[in-house]
Amino acid sequence: MTKPPMRDALVAAAFQLFLERGYEQTTVDDIVALAGVGRRSFFRYFPAKEDVVFPDHERCLADMTAHLAASAEDADPVGRVCDAARMVLLMYAENPAFSVQRYRLTKKVPGLRASELSVVWRYQRALAAYLRGRFADRPDGTLQADVIAAAVVAAHNNALRSWLRSDGQGDATTAVDHALDLVKATFGTPPTPLDRDEPGPGPGPGSESESASEDVVIVVSRRGVPMWRVVQEIESALTTRPQN
Amino acid sequence: MTKPPMRDALVAAAFQLFLERGYEQTTVDDIVALAGVGRRSFFRYFPAKEDVVFPDHERCLADMTAHLAASAEDADPVGRVCDAARMVLLMYAENPAFSVQRYRLTKKVPGLRASELSVVWRYQRALAAYLRGRFADRPDGTLQADVIAAAVVAAHNNALRSWLRSDGQGDATTAVDHALDLVKATFGTPPTPLDRDEPGPGPGPGSESESASEDVVIVVSRRGVPMWRVVQEIESALTTRPQN
Repeated sequence: MTKPPMRDALVAAAFQLFLERGYEQTTVDDIVALAGVGRRSFFRYFPAKEDVVFPDHERCLADMTAHLAASAEDADPVGRVCDAARMVLLMYAENPAFSVQRYRLTKKVPGLRASELSVVWRYQRALAAYLRGRFADRPDGTLQADVIAAAVVAAHNNALRSWLRSDGQGDATTAVDHALDLVKATFGTPPTPLDRDEPGPGPGPGSESESASEDVVIVVSRRGVPMWRVVQEIESALTTRPQN
Repeated sequence: MTKPPMRDALVAAAFQLFLERGYEQTTVDDIVALAGVGRRSFFRYFPAKEDVVFPDHERCLADMTAHLAASAEDADPVGRVCDAARMVLLMYAENPAFSVQRYRLTKKVPGLRASELSVVWRYQRALAAYLRGRFADRPDGTLQADVIAAAVVAAHNNALRSWLRSDGQGDATTAVDHALDLVKATFGTPPTPLDRDEPGPGPGPGSESESASEDVVIVVSRRGVPMWRVVQEIESALTTRPQN
């Protein structure tokens, strides 16, 4: 167990009071009194009252940063940031009842919304920092990095918030995967390159251009078709196994 | 003149003090004393001290919302939100020295960073709300709306912040246009549909499919090419006038 029970007890006491009497009307003294511990114990775990609302974001941010830092040099960068974003979902999905409670509270208390925006921004910056490194040689590399990081966070949060609004019913993972697949289809390399299970041995080093004839995709489109649709068309062509 | 001089005087006095003695060390009393007005005058214009730092965002948000609400029903939605984002740039570019000063101040004061995140989030929501309306009939319409709004804001802010970091040197408009063009190339319809100056009269109502043969674009690509490159290729094909 990595979480000490006293920390859990403080979070539980805080949420009980937030729901009973409101966030603003609850003091740290109230929380420690209900949890049966002293003020110093509270501040050992949380810098301030608002931090008890998001007790696991610091750990999640650290895990995400470590995950990105451990990426292979040739890993698909968009795939990596999508995987990193899924770590946030897992944190929420670990405890659906708590996540839904917190979502309702955050919507009602402006100070908590500000804290949430700040933590979302820190996630987004962590993803962007990794992508900036990977795109260092590209023209517009920092621009692409920032745009993709924002798109990943927006897609993740769209699916996460739908799930929270539905009181944590249904399968959050499927919804988030669908949202992130859309981002990958827009910005990334094909999401399922390993599905192409070749009949013979794959192309060896140096042979890529010679053996790549089946890897040519022809898309016929029409001016004025939204780029989303064109991308989906290409994506679907790219993920379909070529018919030999 | 829409801005009363007293409001300008309060902003000027506030920034003079923020720079001289720091944001936290400056009170509203200090600001009104320097500006030579009473406290009530301050609070007639600004709800709180932090609002004097971003004096024009409320007007800009209102202008942006009005701009989006006035969109033609058949306007290119991604183009409209890019235009809306440019209104924020214009606000910054109106007064480069003030914008650069504020950027430096905002970076140093955590409370102001939180305020800024909150205002950025309100812009992003305004763009997303418009797109959600336009995409109401699409599958994944809210997801696409949220992702595009986030991408537009990230692209705009990437260019804006580069300009602010360079002390407001150079042409902010060109940088922001370039960044937004990249978003349009990814998500939008062709950026320059009016450039296609047809030799004869344009297609009349109902004749679209008959006259559309020159509007077919064929893209040949290779599996594994990043979607960005494919999109740029298509985009460049779409904006080149067809050779008859």
